[in-house]
Amino acid sequence: MTTITAVEVHDVRFPTSLTADGSDAMNKDGDYSAAYVVLRTDDPALNGYGFTFTIGRGNDICVLASEQRAQPLIGRDADDVLDDLGATYRDLKTDSQLRWLGPEKGVEHLAMAAVMNALWDMAARRAGKPLWRLLADMSPEELVDVADLQYLSDALTRDEAVALLREQMPTRAARIAELEQTGYPCYTTSAGWLGYSDDKLRRLLREAVDEGYRHVKLKVGANLDEDIRRCRIAREEIGPDAKLMIDANQVWDVPQAIEWVKALAEFDPLWIEEPTSPDDVLGHAAIRRAVAPIGVATGEHGMNRVLFKQMFQAEAIDFCQLDSARLASINEILAVYLLAKKFDVPVCPHAGGVGLCELVQHLSIFDYVAVSGSLENRVTEFVDHLHEHFVDPCIVENGAYRVPSMPGYSAEMHSASIAEYSYPFGTYWAERTLQATAQPA
Amino acid sequence: MTTITAVEVHDVRFPTSLTADGSDAMNKDGDYSAAYVVLRTDDPALNGYGFTFTIGRGNDICVLASEQRAQPLIGRDADDVLDDLGATYRDLKTDSQLRWLGPEKGVEHLAMAAVMNALWDMAARRAGKPLWRLLADMSPEELVDVADLQYLSDALTRDEAVALLREQMPTRAARIAELEQTGYPCYTTSAGWLGYSDDKLRRLLREAVDEGYRHVKLKVGANLDEDIRRCRIAREEIGPDAKLMIDANQVWDVPQAIEWVKALAEFDPLWIEEPTSPDDVLGHAAIRRAVAPIGVATGEHGMNRVLFKQMFQAEAIDFCQLDSARLASINEILAVYLLAKKFDVPVCPHAGGVGLCELVQHLSIFDYVAVSGSLENRVTEFVDHLHEHFVDPCIVENGAYRVPSMPGYSAEMHSASIAEYSYPFGTYWAERTLQATAQPA
Repeated sequence: MTTITAVEVHDVRFPTSLTADGSDAMNKDGDYSAAYVVLRTDDPALNGYGFTFTIGRGNDICVLASEQRAQPLIGRDADDVLDDLGATYRDLKTDSQLRWLGPEKGVEHLAMAAVMNALWDMAARRAGKPLWRLLADMSPEELVDVADLQYLSDALTRDEAVALLREQMPTRAARIAELEQTGYPCYTTSAGWLGYSDDKLRRLLREAVDEGYRHVKLKVGANLDEDIRRCRIAREEIGPDAKLMIDANQVWDVPQAIEWVKALAEFDPLWIEEPTSPDDVLGHAAIRRAVAPIGVATGEHGMNRVLFKQMFQAEAIDFCQLDSARLASINEILAVYLLAKKFDVPVCPHAGGVGLCELVQHLSIFDYVAVSGSLENRVTEFVDHLHEHFVDPCIVENGAYRVPSMPGYSAEMHSASIAEYSYPFGTYWAERTLQATAQPA
Repeated sequence: MTTITAVEVHDVRFPTSLTADGSDAMNKDGDYSAAYVVLRTDDPALNGYGFTFTIGRGNDICVLASEQRAQPLIGRDADDVLDDLGATYRDLKTDSQLRWLGPEKGVEHLAMAAVMNALWDMAARRAGKPLWRLLADMSPEELVDVADLQYLSDALTRDEAVALLREQMPTRAARIAELEQTGYPCYTTSAGWLGYSDDKLRRLLREAVDEGYRHVKLKVGANLDEDIRRCRIAREEIGPDAKLMIDANQVWDVPQAIEWVKALAEFDPLWIEEPTSPDDVLGHAAIRRAVAPIGVATGEHGMNRVLFKQMFQAEAIDFCQLDSARLASINEILAVYLLAKKFDVPVCPHAGGVGLCELVQHLSIFDYVAVSGSLENRVTEFVDHLHEHFVDPCIVENGAYRVPSMPGYSAEMHSASIAEYSYPFGTYWAERTLQATAQPA
């Protein structure tokens, strides 16, 4: 018997604001951060690692919320917890006092994501498999049993979900073999942050094309003239056939979104991402109708499965960009993948940040193998930074994620990274705090 | 010049779970709590008091979030802050790092509510007026300037909002005079908690009728046979003409909600409240179409104005039950009232909890005076507990809130209550903690 003996949650912050990595029209100065959960067991090889992603201030709030969420796990038998991760998830999420603080959204939901991500990591380690493989080895019934279908039955019943998964069963193995050859296709956002100069933009785009990318993404929405200039540079560098995506990070009202996107239509964007409030199902539907054939994409701030259900029901989006650290881990993500399959919307997960690429590779591979069975219109985000802090970093070659092979969810960070970037007393931050307080007034 | 010198946030929890006050199908054991904000100034008469409401665990997370939200106010000139509460609100809400944790939902949004509630309290104290009067004395342009209209322009433009408010200008004074005579009509939920016995239910209903209430509300959703029995008791006690509302606190999926509500239709409910996930705009619309003429009500968990905009656009609700401590104070609440007026949906604010009745009396009075100009289909919740902890408690007589007259937002608690119920080291909780730890294993 292995016991979950303790939970540790670390406030880890990387100073990305110093280089304008991650700058966009809404988020000008993020310090990419993780509320990083370690579920310790009396067998260290079974420890579970997970996190949610934030951009700096308030990461400590997610740490506190994650500690509280994980607290009922302490002292429990790991097998009992892991043998029925559907029941474990429901136990944690139905704490009615904590539920009031959402429900199922905001800080409390980010904390659920962090804790359940650590449990899924532990489950995959126990099985000796990478997470995508653990999921791909589960039967349709087992998968549906762990999926959170509450509030979804008007759009997807349990029986429909099982039937969707059964369709793909006979061909799972062939798709695994295929991906082990080709990898899973990705695109890069590394080039297109708003804070970069035109020269840097052009150089990075050229490098992306040279590295085999057929999709690139630019941040837009701060200034229309600049957006036109930057989109023109992008088309010059990537040519007419490669795909250009644009991302406004929620800066517009609905009428303004329609007007602005139409002004960029000449650059033939594949999608406009986050044109307005992530909560606005009907707004996205209106924008989609107005800017077609340009697609509408959203989801990195999609708070829960009920929002995605409505996005699908209202035919509001062409691309679903669910987030692996904002939805409540596999239990809720599975439900969104099943809905997406039912409504025939491709899922192109949000990534970047800290460690999101490490997580989403598992999701995309599992989706292709067991749910959608399709790569059409699917491409997963990749941002090339902060991977050096992970024990099992994702590997991208020729514009594709290589299939991960180590047991777990690829979420474990190096202890040296935690020691350096823990806030505010890790070595990196402590030094800066000392400098700041030592300066004369 | 008056300076905002400090922020204190108290974790105040009342042990309501001991008596089953507040028990419903989703929330069985709430300890009604407040993250209670005191914005201190160097003139103690100008201190601002505000809070958000929770039901126990996690209240400490809201405390931490409120401290961080209020931090930029410390050291600022109170007049600068209060003279443009629209700008102050936008400054606080656009912190991009904290925004990531929502955006505009969950713990971070509850904290915005707590802090902005304290600022509006301070503004009313500075003016020497109760808050409803401060608002009722503002011009349409001044009101629209403080309202948060971001993401709403597809449903309501600034010019439309000004025009709606101008319509009511000439008759504001007459409605104030009327309410000072009659009070604002309310209904009681005090009778209908799920945890109460049939005898207690019957006795409380009889008392409610005797006290002049024409509307009562029952909690439903745990067991259909029991709901039928309890609704029958209610009709026996209140008669066929008084209004009966039922409240499921989000326990159903959409198809189940429709089936269950139809099974209770014989008791002629005025509305079904929170039939499903509070996020499900399209679900509420489907339920509303199916159960008409029974009305659909929701909003106490309505996370922000974008959700309410969609509820109105989709014709999803008959009654809007916005929450004074979940929406980001007057700035956002005003926007929802303006939308409700445009779409002709009555607002019947959620109350109860800790201090929510104290807040909503100001909102309902202001709505009648300056926005809707109507009492038709409007009735504001009242729950008769915990008022003794407030310096300026609401007063209900003959089924109506009396118009408050003291300066401020009626949010200030007695310091003795804070000393007793602060968690975990106030006298009430400290004693119980000592007892628990002193018990033999």
